[in-house]
Amino acid sequence: MQTRQKVGILGATGVIGQRFLQLLEAHPWFEVAWLAASDRSSGRRYADVARWKLDTPIPAEIAGMTVSPASPEGAPKVIFAALDADIAREMEPAFAAAGCAVISNSSAFRMQADVPLVVPEVNREHVGLLESQSWRKNGGGYILTNPNCSTIGLVLALKPLEERFGVEGVAVTTLQAISGAGYPGVASLDILGNVVPHIKGEEEKMESETKKLLGRLRGDRIEPLAARVSAHCNRVAVEDGHTESVSVKLSRKASREEILAAWREFTPLVGSALPTAPERPVEFLEEENRPQPRLDRMRGKGMTATVGRLRPCELLDWKFTVLSHNTIRGGAGAALLNGELLAASGRLDFPANPGPGAGRLERVAVPA
Amino acid sequence: MQTRQKVGILGATGVIGQRFLQLLEAHPWFEVAWLAASDRSSGRRYADVARWKLDTPIPAEIAGMTVSPASPEGAPKVIFAALDADIAREMEPAFAAAGCAVISNSSAFRMQADVPLVVPEVNREHVGLLESQSWRKNGGGYILTNPNCSTIGLVLALKPLEERFGVEGVAVTTLQAISGAGYPGVASLDILGNVVPHIKGEEEKMESETKKLLGRLRGDRIEPLAARVSAHCNRVAVEDGHTESVSVKLSRKASREEILAAWREFTPLVGSALPTAPERPVEFLEEENRPQPRLDRMRGKGMTATVGRLRPCELLDWKFTVLSHNTIRGGAGAALLNGELLAASGRLDFPANPGPGAGRLERVAVPA
Amino acid sequence: MQTRQKVGILGATGVIGQRFLQLLEAHPWFEVAWLAASDRSSGRRYADVARWKLDTPIPAEIAGMTVSPASPEGAPKVIFAALDADIAREMEPAFAAAGCAVISNSSAFRMQADVPLVVPEVNREHVGLLESQSWRKNGGGYILTNPNCSTIGLVLALKPLEERFGVEGVAVTTLQAISGAGYPGVASLDILGNVVPHIKGEEEKMESETKKLLGRLRGDRIEPLAARVSAHCNRVAVEDGHTESVSVKLSRKASREEILAAWREFTPLVGSALPTAPERPVEFLEEENRPQPRLDRMRGKGMTATVGRLRPCELLDWKFTVLSHNTIRGGAGAALLNGELLAASGRLDFPANPGPGAGRLERVAVPA
Amino acid sequence: MQTRQKVGILGATGVIGQRFLQLLEAHPWFEVAWLAASDRSSGRRYADVARWKLDTPIPAEIAGMTVSPASPEGAPKVIFAALDADIAREMEPAFAAAGCAVISNSSAFRMQADVPLVVPEVNREHVGLLESQSWRKNGGGYILTNPNCSTIGLVLALKPLEERFGVEGVAVTTLQAISGAGYPGVASLDILGNVVPHIKGEEEKMESETKKLLGRLRGDRIEPLAARVSAHCNRVAVEDGHTESVSVKLSRKASREEILAAWREFTPLVGSALPTAPERPVEFLEEENRPQPRLDRMRGKGMTATVGRLRPCELLDWKFTVLSHNTIRGGAGAALLNGELLAASGRLDFPANPGPGAGRLERVAVPA
Repeated sequence: MQTRQKVGILGATGVIGQRFLQLLEAHPWFEVAWLAASDRSSGRRYADVARWKLDTPIPAEIAGMTVSPASPEGAPKVIFAALDADIAREMEPAFAAAGCAVISNSSAFRMQADVPLVVPEVNREHVGLLESQSWRKNGGGYILTNPNCSTIGLVLALKPLEERFGVEGVAVTTLQAISGAGYPGVASLDILGNVVPHIKGEEEKMESETKKLLGRLRGDRIEPLAARVSAHCNRVAVEDGHTESVSVKLSRKASREEILAAWREFTPLVGSALPTAPERPVEFLEEENRPQPRLDRMRGKGMTATVGRLRPCELLDWKFTVLSHNTIRGGAGAALLNGELLAASGRLDFPANPGPGAGRLERVAVPA
Repeated sequence: MQTRQKVGILGATGVIGQRFLQLLEAHPWFEVAWLAASDRSSGRRYADVARWKLDTPIPAEIAGMTVSPASPEGAPKVIFAALDADIAREMEPAFAAAGCAVISNSSAFRMQADVPLVVPEVNREHVGLLESQSWRKNGGGYILTNPNCSTIGLVLALKPLEERFGVEGVAVTTLQAISGAGYPGVASLDILGNVVPHIKGEEEKMESETKKLLGRLRGDRIEPLAARVSAHCNRVAVEDGHTESVSVKLSRKASREEILAAWREFTPLVGSALPTAPERPVEFLEEENRPQPRLDRMRGKGMTATVGRLRPCELLDWKFTVLSHNTIRGGAGAALLNGELLAASGRLDFPANPGPGAGRLERVAVPA
Repeated sequence: MQTRQKVGILGATGVIGQRFLQLLEAHPWFEVAWLAASDRSSGRRYADVARWKLDTPIPAEIAGMTVSPASPEGAPKVIFAALDADIAREMEPAFAAAGCAVISNSSAFRMQADVPLVVPEVNREHVGLLESQSWRKNGGGYILTNPNCSTIGLVLALKPLEERFGVEGVAVTTLQAISGAGYPGVASLDILGNVVPHIKGEEEKMESETKKLLGRLRGDRIEPLAARVSAHCNRVAVEDGHTESVSVKLSRKASREEILAAWREFTPLVGSALPTAPERPVEFLEEENRPQPRLDRMRGKGMTATVGRLRPCELLDWKFTVLSHNTIRGGAGAALLNGELLAASGRLDFPANPGPGAGRLERVAVPA
Repeated sequence: MQTRQKVGILGATGVIGQRFLQLLEAHPWFEVAWLAASDRSSGRRYADVARWKLDTPIPAEIAGMTVSPASPEGAPKVIFAALDADIAREMEPAFAAAGCAVISNSSAFRMQADVPLVVPEVNREHVGLLESQSWRKNGGGYILTNPNCSTIGLVLALKPLEERFGVEGVAVTTLQAISGAGYPGVASLDILGNVVPHIKGEEEKMESETKKLLGRLRGDRIEPLAARVSAHCNRVAVEDGHTESVSVKLSRKASREEILAAWREFTPLVGSALPTAPERPVEFLEEENRPQPRLDRMRGKGMTATVGRLRPCELLDWKFTVLSHNTIRGGAGAALLNGELLAASGRLDFPANPGPGAGRLERVAVPA
């Protein structure tokens, strides 16, 4: 195995932080060399401070690592960040200013004009936006983000339709898993046998992020998609996997067969060799009662969005259900795939700490 | 207490049948005198054949009753029916032909042109439709139905808006409780920690029933509301209470305050003295995360639909959440309220078995 | 209605505090006149600070009440207390020292030698113990407690057996509801689709409290029952209702019929007129798969412990399942019944604030 | 890869049948060559008749296989059977009589005197019992069984204690997952937010099977362990993983350290090269609130029983919690490991269809 690039995890003890560690175990390009969490955890053994909630054990090489203070000194140049937005707002710029590539899962900077919001299969050409960041110009560092866990399944399903038919209107209602709220997150008294029809800020995120992701890069800015998007967000008693009921209005008429073909033929990263990229970013299930979170969230190792129930919509044009794993495809896996995309485009090749890119990888076609 | 009218329950052992018995315990107008269920149960003690699933015990006077064969001989003239559609399709006409008032919760005849589909607060004037039924003309019997459990909360929320502003388009996504599928119904392996994004026939029912309920009685037919209605139906791990995310397009602009006023002032049965009518058919909750099934389904003894989260919709005009108890407001309570409406309009006054109406009740204003 | 005695609630915003308010709505003897909670809530409107989690609305007369500081000044003389043990340890003595009757649900003083730990049907003669408290002697105040939510169902089932056959050994495994941990309490990620086989301090409480409750009052001390009691405590995904699998070794052989008779004939408060006392403190269910929390926890308005599945035990003598509602019978209802017992024995008749006892109530036979 | 032995699955569409297919995908020794299920499914494509409920897709090579009639004609000589007891009682003898090795998960023949009931780590020497079966003597066929899903975790935890200290008494209360009841199995209305304190026949199985498993082979019969075992069996809202609260009385005193050592050093199949054998059949977890089904059931790929919470028992000697995956360790994995044990002892080497044993495998020490 070639030398792997050392990476750090900011927010390593949370639900998404844990997924990063799980997904990075034995990753071919990246090696976790540094963990940081809140001050309370700093200086202690990871296994002693993390309340590990995944069904695989803490990776052996991680359990005994000491949690570092959350500051750029001593941190690797490549940082996967899983911080709450409030904390991210202060901390991510500090790392970018220190020359780090901050690959963030936080909402803090997603909508900032010069910060790319990227899903590699959807809009990898937006990556170039980061070159206009002042951190980048000054010291090489930058921030790149992935969308909210509920946005990502939606845009994966919409992108092939937007490409072929245009998307003018979207009505989406989510049924979101509890892991999306972190730990301790949702109180059991609030969700057992219940639905909570509100998730703070979630609807706004889905509406604005979807338009940025499906927008066009014009010089050094993104022109958002000119569509109307309306979201209803609900929390349900599911551990992992966000289910979404979607109605869509297209710019030009499309038949059922055309839509299925658009999804089937949507394989934009095939041949890219990004290790975390699923063979099929969108997979259509024929059964009339699928997708379901318990049965389908792990397709493509948790990176495939599954769609089903395609049928005409009396109000818009077509309706369907989409499901994606919220802490893999919609969290740590999303950021990891972004990290791989950056590596493949040479943007993790720091002089003092060369990445696995530069001449060594089959490159993904990404505009400079 | 005045003499109560004897009523029978068809399908007395099912989930809705049990709710009928629970709600009819100590009802001021009606007295359960006859129970029927499948052949397998006939001739046996009710408590021995019903797999009772409610959290109050089987009413004492019911437990020891013998289950009758499901045929009109010996049955009272007033029948509350909670049968599966397939069975209802054969059996309800037999009872109507035998001169019974069949107050049905089944979907079998809801969309038939001469069968009233009624929610008293919404369209009680549709009751008159039953006078055109041939059973009615020949022997006095008839069938009157209430809508599907997921339709009823929606139309209660929409009716005040339709009255004041007109409704042109509706997008609704449901999160439906397991009790809606009866017993044994949904397998636990299918729903625990899961969502099932499909309920057979449910979306079609919501779309067509809503338009009939909000339609106009023109002579002896209903002109359905000219609106586009699109439903997504999902099953979630909730015992009772259907939650619905609704977006609505109005014919004329309405402010938030106007909509809240429409709901607040919607008290169409006040003064009607129907025992099961809730004080407020629609109640708006101010909290940003309500209504919730576990907390709100029992408002108005399970007969109030609660709405919340009113906010502008980027795609249509407004969006909100509505919740109603699926086996009370959306099932046995719906039929019971219909029975009370019929009694109050004299339509349960059978010669051989006079009802509580005719001169004894304050009448609800119902067109003959 | 006679004048009701004014009572205060300490810890009014918690899960048990809310149950107190629900159960005291329209109570014939007591009237909630004062509410206290944490400093954060003090001075604010109850409805604005309580995160109300019950399925009935906040009682109308409570919603607008101002939350008082948690100190005896201005508080009524009768206090129902629902505090965490740490806080109770400081605060309850302060109220007792100020002359209040503190009827506590907390574990803080349950095992203290001069504090009665009482379930009225089980050991109401222990009440006399409070006369030896120094607070009582000095200013009339005192502390009286009820047991832990998981102990109470067990002792209700055991008491009739202890009376007739003697109890020498008890093995009990609990399956406890989430509401027992308060709010926010158990994180949904910890309990959805899961079991947590540990509840801090719970096993020790069940073992020691059971022996004190079934013990004898000897002068001014309790001689605990000389039995071996072993508890396993588990948390399960149930909202309300603790289920317990119990094996018991008796001092003398008893037949199935004798045990059923002991439970059936156990009606120690009949004729006592305590408003919250259930007709049957213990009810045996014949069905082979009962009791179940969802179906049976509300028997006797949540005050009846249901037992079932009586069968021989290969290891001890008999085994059975017992269920009780943890926040009613095992919490607020337990304390309320204790309050009624104290009222009926004249121990709430404070000179400046006479209780409903003294000559006005049919007295329960309670040793002075 | 060497030639794999062709095996058949009886009851291939059920919950355990599906696990067989999942676990046998890419098995180094066995290859699924034949599937049978009910008559209704016979002749149809597997993917069209199985209601697949696992979170990995149907193995590609299985999806298109045709389901065979459930009779020995055309079946391989090695049969893994996952049939309901009623059906197994007729069908398994037919296959054994036809010369097949029937490796059964059913309860039908577990307690029959000449049928080995085997957990390889616990009592592999019992395998020899099958040589006395008349089917074996006549045509080479036989039946060998594994225990009930709730027994297996218990005996894995008890075996090391029995070996070192002797076991005289066991009190066990289970909290069992819904998958143990098959599909559709437990109705969601029965288990959501609920506990069902009864599983038909389960307690009797746990009591008798435990004694047979821990018993001694004396010539051609098993002398059961002379211990008293008492079980309470409960169903809880968990998908997979049976949790058990266990108290145990030992023949001689043991310290905490001695018990931990017994579990730690219990590695009876190390070096056996059975592919499904976990590195550690029993693993002790130090955390005070473990094991938990959601977090720990997949240890050892679902084949490790995890124990925790070891502490003194006031009634017996020690108490602890044990957890095991009910459809892997307690079902398909148990049978598969038995199959591997049989292969390693040469008992799958049929003349016409030689197994992977005979000279090719490192043999496990199993008495002939």
